[in-house]
Amino acid sequence: MSRARTVRLGAGAEFDLIRRLTEGGGDLPSEVLIGPGDDAAVLRDGWVLSTDLSVEDVHFRRAWLEDREIGYRAAVSGLSDLAAMGASPVGLLLSIAAPRGGRVDIEAVAAGVRAAAEEHGAAVIGGDVSRSPGPLVLDVVAVGCTSWPVQRDGAEPGDQVWVTGFLGAAAAAVRAWEEGGDPSPELRAAFAAPRARTEAARCLVEREIVDAMIDISDGLAGDVGHLAAASGVAITLETECIPVAAAAVEALGAEAALDVALHGGEDYELCFVTDPDVVDVAYFQKRFGLRVTRVGTVSDGEGVWLQKPDGRRERATRGGYDHWEGEKG
Amino acid sequence: MSRARTVRLGAGAEFDLIRRLTEGGGDLPSEVLIGPGDDAAVLRDGWVLSTDLSVEDVHFRRAWLEDREIGYRAAVSGLSDLAAMGASPVGLLLSIAAPRGGRVDIEAVAAGVRAAAEEHGAAVIGGDVSRSPGPLVLDVVAVGCTSWPVQRDGAEPGDQVWVTGFLGAAAAAVRAWEEGGDPSPELRAAFAAPRARTEAARCLVEREIVDAMIDISDGLAGDVGHLAAASGVAITLETECIPVAAAAVEALGAEAALDVALHGGEDYELCFVTDPDVVDVAYFQKRFGLRVTRVGTVSDGEGVWLQKPDGRRERATRGGYDHWEGEKG
Repeated sequence: MSRARTVRLGAGAEFDLIRRLTEGGGDLPSEVLIGPGDDAAVLRDGWVLSTDLSVEDVHFRRAWLEDREIGYRAAVSGLSDLAAMGASPVGLLLSIAAPRGGRVDIEAVAAGVRAAAEEHGAAVIGGDVSRSPGPLVLDVVAVGCTSWPVQRDGAEPGDQVWVTGFLGAAAAAVRAWEEGGDPSPELRAAFAAPRARTEAARCLVEREIVDAMIDISDGLAGDVGHLAAASGVAITLETECIPVAAAAVEALGAEAALDVALHGGEDYELCFVTDPDVVDVAYFQKRFGLRVTRVGTVSDGEGVWLQKPDGRRERATRGGYDHWEGEKG
Repeated sequence: MSRARTVRLGAGAEFDLIRRLTEGGGDLPSEVLIGPGDDAAVLRDGWVLSTDLSVEDVHFRRAWLEDREIGYRAAVSGLSDLAAMGASPVGLLLSIAAPRGGRVDIEAVAAGVRAAAEEHGAAVIGGDVSRSPGPLVLDVVAVGCTSWPVQRDGAEPGDQVWVTGFLGAAAAAVRAWEEGGDPSPELRAAFAAPRARTEAARCLVEREIVDAMIDISDGLAGDVGHLAAASGVAITLETECIPVAAAAVEALGAEAALDVALHGGEDYELCFVTDPDVVDVAYFQKRFGLRVTRVGTVSDGEGVWLQKPDGRRERATRGGYDHWEGEKG
């Protein structure tokens, strides 16, 4: 047994709890290269494992999604964790606890998981099923491999901070539903049919240009906080640079859309950190149809800071969605 | 992508459902050596993965167990799957969906999982947490490795069928609780503090004497049915040979105790199949303090048969506990 690396997490009750629940033990077996605290665990031979809950009325409402979409989205959640480690997906294990009596079409849920697996180059390789006396609960275990796992703790002062895609559309869909309305088709699709950034992440790994990476599905500001804490650095996000989804701006207005892009979560996008001026934006657009955007910089210090257009620089005091407290942190 | 082996499961709605949910896809990635249908999936490099749900009011009631015991038992469930593949445990990933408000001591649950991991040579290497609007739900992912995974499909006519330990005590505890009583301390301990047969299973693998193996936590007769179906053979269990736990006989009488030993499930024991006369019973007793008992034989044909002391041989028409239907199958 040797002391494998564990990773500092940023603020938030959910993350404090995960830390306490998973890190109570002593040494980790020597086969475990990366233990609790990153997007996924890493084993000898480069195997990468994550586990992700999707709980009815916490992570989704059945009124919002078809059963197949519930499975699809839950699977992408795990696949996005693999992408954040720079891993290629291999398999998913699917546990479903479902109410009986036909309220949930469990086979449609599983079909959604299988579809997500196949679209990302993986397959369902095992699972468990139980009835549930309450909500539909999924747990998706994502299994991948990489010869170079990308952690959260490699950011260094002077590095640039990037994100994939456009942010805020999925959270804007949730806001529309929670206010009793219906999101636009574009907002709904962002929540119901996300895609993990597997190929772009693999490209970053193969080009050896990424120092640190994290999935930002719990909210950009909060997840960047985990990356900053793990790396022992400060990160400043330039709010003018945040790639806010146009559909979110249309639905919410510019100010509220920026807020959900920073704090709303629900986007299965990646934040990655590189040396200055090594990312070929046009290449990502051409090869993957994916916008990558520089959103900030790394410096000495700690925490996450927001640089406003008027020159003010404020600490980001709010994180993202907390699946334990059930509140925006 | 090549066609990895999938395994035929025996009867039971729960198993039909797992099969349909996990086997809908096409080919498996070449890194997957054993896919859905066995106790666990097996990946290149000998990594073994299982996922097990433990759902409040399905797998346990909180009135029966301390929170720490709930975690411990859930973890042993996964560790027993690893043992059934002949794998050494390395790590557990723990997902907990728990009601908030103090009804569940989530840290005690996690401490039980950690304790089980450590007692079996593993560690908690990751996890997820969410609040639950209903029951406490755990999903434990067990990760191990072996250079020789033992499957369910290697039983051949003429082989002997063995089980570890004594059967029926945990199911007798459940019966006592369900009838409104309290089980004896010995019955309670069988349910609350089981131990996976990791070391004995590893010994069987190292001695290269095991042709097939399965965890019998869903009930001896039902799980032997899965093994028989996977192997394409008939298995006859000699009811006189079943090692019924003395505490179960004391609580229920001999006939009902035999019934729970055959069909009650809840025991994290193993059934294994070997060539005739290769198991050194005294060695297992001395080295592991573990009784291993020959309980039957493999022959041409199909299904599970019960050989009675009066010479009758009847088909075992009942399986074990079904976590989907919620009934004894």
